[in-house]
Amino acid sequence: MQVINPEWTTTEEAIAKKAFDIAYKREIDSLMDSVRSKVNSLAEIDDIWDLHDFLSVKRHEIDGRYDYRLPMIIFVFAGLVKDGWLNITELEGLNANKIAKIVALAHM
Amino acid sequence: MQVINPEWTTTEEAIAKKAFDIAYKREIDSLMDSVRSKVNSLAEIDDIWDLHDFLSVKRHEIDGRYDYRLPMIIFVFAGLVKDGWLNITELEGLNANKIAKIVALAHM
Repeated sequence: MQVINPEWTTTEEAIAKKAFDIAYKREIDSLMDSVRSKVNSLAEIDDIWDLHDFLSVKRHEIDGRYDYRLPMIIFVFAGLVKDGWLNITELEGLNANKIAKIVALAHM
Repeated sequence: MQVINPEWTTTEEAIAKKAFDIAYKREIDSLMDSVRSKVNSLAEIDDIWDLHDFLSVKRHEIDGRYDYRLPMIIFVFAGLVKDGWLNITELEGLNANKIAKIVALAHM
């Protein structure tokens, strides 16, 4: 198996990228559903400003979370597993050491 | 007629407060319609961030605009007339000097 990163095989990279994309799509789809739901029950101006606050927080979280760089991806995956955007089984194929690190970090 | 402010009669104050509230409700209703329309055509993540940017601008505008203090209300009304949230006829009953100032400022 070709190694292009000292710690990541090309197979692992493909698994990582796919898992990253799945989690991102999952979180974005959830965000869109939340926005639609909030707007469906829009009744007064405070609901608009609550929506604005909600989007400010989500934008900050999502911008900070989805940083696809292999040296940091273990931490990204740990956060995604912890917050429920990724299931650890979706990382199957990464070596056992990486999985163990992600699980440990996700429980912190 | 009772005068509680050296320049504003109680009748004028009532007219000003009513016009202020009308413009506010009109702008908020319009904002809610815009948000509903944007969310109806939500397709991708950039649409969410565009909505967030839009709400940031509107919140800043609306927070800055609706300042009900009589000494400044001439300027507030001029801005509302200029931007189409208030019709000058909705200020009928203010004295001619105030109306003239509002019209002049609205054309600046």
